Amino acid sequence: MEHLMEKFVSSKEIYNGKIIKVHLDTVLLPNNNEATREVVDHPGAVAVVPILDDGSIVLVKQYRYPVDKVTLEIPAGKLDYNEDPDDCVVRELREETGYQAKEMNRITSIYTAPGFSNEIIHIYIARKLVMGEVCLDEDEFVDVDIYKPEEIRVMINKGIINDAKTLTGLLLAGV
Amino acid sequence: MEHLMEKFVSSKEIYNGKIIKVHLDTVLLPNNNEATREVVDHPGAVAVVPILDDGSIVLVKQYRYPVDKVTLEIPAGKLDYNEDPDDCVVRELREETGYQAKEMNRITSIYTAPGFSNEIIHIYIARKLVMGEVCLDEDEFVDVDIYKPEEIRVMINKGIINDAKTLTGLLLAGV
Repeated sequence: MEHLMEKFVSSKEIYNGKIIKVHLDTVLLPNNNEATREVVDHPGAVAVVPILDDGSIVLVKQYRYPVDKVTLEIPAGKLDYNEDPDDCVVRELREETGYQAKEMNRITSIYTAPGFSNEIIHIYIARKLVMGEVCLDEDEFVDVDIYKPEEIRVMINKGIINDAKTLTGLLLAGV
Repeated sequence: MEHLMEKFVSSKEIYNGKIIKVHLDTVLLPNNNEATREVVDHPGAVAVVPILDDGSIVLVKQYRYPVDKVTLEIPAGKLDYNEDPDDCVVRELREETGYQAKEMNRITSIYTAPGFSNEIIHIYIARKLVMGEVCLDEDEFVDVDIYKPEEIRVMINKGIINDAKTLTGLLLAGV
């Protein structure tokens, strides 16, 4: 792969925020030309396809400020510093939906936008779900809804479900 | 959806780069608390699943600096300012792979990271492909490879293919 690789030359910090960091790096291309790369560092996240015993799926509706839309997504959340994804996904599923899963399996990990960010999302399937208590943060606003697989397929085909991690998770789960 | 919406209060520019812009916005939550939102503006992109007459699929290998990995992806590229995605996808497919498609259909548009970015990727399926000439920029380094659907399924299951738009496109194409 050597003929494709870029070599790090230098990095300049642009922004050190609450969630993201932004830096502008200089790299050496395979042809030895220099180029710049704008990079958004992200802590990573987890997402989970919660499948009820009857095959229905638990989704969450929430407002996403960057795209100015209410989106329908699988439950997800950012990793806390040094947090194990396997722990994070249990916490996020419980906090957002109230459900606890007796079966939780990681199916894959995806890069959402590798052209400009290192965000990685670890995607799980949760089964044998038991209802507990929703415990959203005071400043978190999420609607929980349950859909049959055939309803979800219609929403995928119509482009109503349009979040990358959600599409990947649902399609890998065979919905 | 009113009970989920956030209202814009103010915006502070952090970075105005070549590809991305970053701003820190203040919003009013549904409970009237104030919160900040770190937002990465992106020009948007196109991506295409090129399917050859025998069902094989054309993928590209390239180094992605933000994740420090060579990834296997469907051909894709950023939209130029004011460019029509339908034009962009024809250009990107030809530039990266040499192929021209007699059939090109948009299957969906996805948000890659709606938690912190407005990047949207319009995904197409290209069929009836005719080989032309690859015309990469001097500073672009891409390997073009052709895979059978069964090879792709193995790479998806093993997590070798891990780019969100690529997984979404391939799975929606029924691979």
